[in-house]
Amino acid sequence: MTPTTGPGFAVLLTGFSGAGKSTVAEELLRRWTPQRAVTVLDGDIVRTMLSHGLSFSREDRDLNIRRIGWVAAEVVRHGGAVIIAAIAPYDGAREQARDMVEEYGVFGLVHLSTPLEVCEARDVKGLYARARTGEIASFTGVSDPYELPSRPDVVIDTSQLAVEESADAIAVYLRLRGVTLA
Amino acid sequence: MTPTTGPGFAVLLTGFSGAGKSTVAEELLRRWTPQRAVTVLDGDIVRTMLSHGLSFSREDRDLNIRRIGWVAAEVVRHGGAVIIAAIAPYDGAREQARDMVEEYGVFGLVHLSTPLEVCEARDVKGLYARARTGEIASFTGVSDPYELPSRPDVVIDTSQLAVEESADAIAVYLRLRGVTLA
Repeated sequence: MTPTTGPGFAVLLTGFSGAGKSTVAEELLRRWTPQRAVTVLDGDIVRTMLSHGLSFSREDRDLNIRRIGWVAAEVVRHGGAVIIAAIAPYDGAREQARDMVEEYGVFGLVHLSTPLEVCEARDVKGLYARARTGEIASFTGVSDPYELPSRPDVVIDTSQLAVEESADAIAVYLRLRGVTLA
Repeated sequence: MTPTTGPGFAVLLTGFSGAGKSTVAEELLRRWTPQRAVTVLDGDIVRTMLSHGLSFSREDRDLNIRRIGWVAAEVVRHGGAVIIAAIAPYDGAREQARDMVEEYGVFGLVHLSTPLEVCEARDVKGLYARARTGEIASFTGVSDPYELPSRPDVVIDTSQLAVEESADAIAVYLRLRGVTLA
């Protein structure tokens, strides 16, 4: 592992299913991995390792994000880098994650603001179709709310911005906050 | 934060309620904190932040330890130090935690082998009394099993060894594994 330089940090990529969270996360991971260890907390690993058994109720969604925020904070405490990719539809839980991480390092809330129509037209996993028929309940944007971030640090519409430019925008924010990345 | 030297590491203190896990954990924390950031995963914080809603069934106990092991591994990946204090009664889950942590650094399984009679006589929290009357069910050592560790790295009976000597024994093991501590 390369010794870390500068503070630990976590970026939380929030937005609708299909907004580009995983794609941007992969680009960040590709850029950062040669420089430092990176912890990725995305939906799949989190639902497997951290939040198995939680539902998609507001209470459980908030618990999920608080839990992710707590783990991210512990990694950041040791100077680590964390990428979180989660729908994270509620502003209160996102800000709780920020508070936990900022106790030890830098936090960036990245709103993937890609319009719902674009996300639904992409429908990479066929989830929107199943949400529209009601086969999937409590689906964010269709049958469950998404609160706009009150304090986004970076806003990216991936229908307008390429993935490289999206990652650049995040790097610029982090640099302003004192995070050194090549 | 002081820059870390050497690999990240996690010690898992396992044993009965009252065996001395928290006391030893506090002594380790007291020694290490001036030198490096330390993540403590003890029963209370884990049940609050990570495992709220889990029961004391074998399945949920194992899930709890795997979850702790996964978080510890992510911290160790970044060169961090972790102290885990948990009853962790099943050998399989403890070894799964070892496997996850050893992917990135050093793991030490510390068996607090203080005899059950001593732990029960201490009964600091009055839990044994409540377990004996049946008010608390599935209580390790009384109404739930404790599997002896098949691969302990350090064995400490706190009815025989003072807390300073206990912490010394753990430090010696860690030094042998390449962990530098003052």
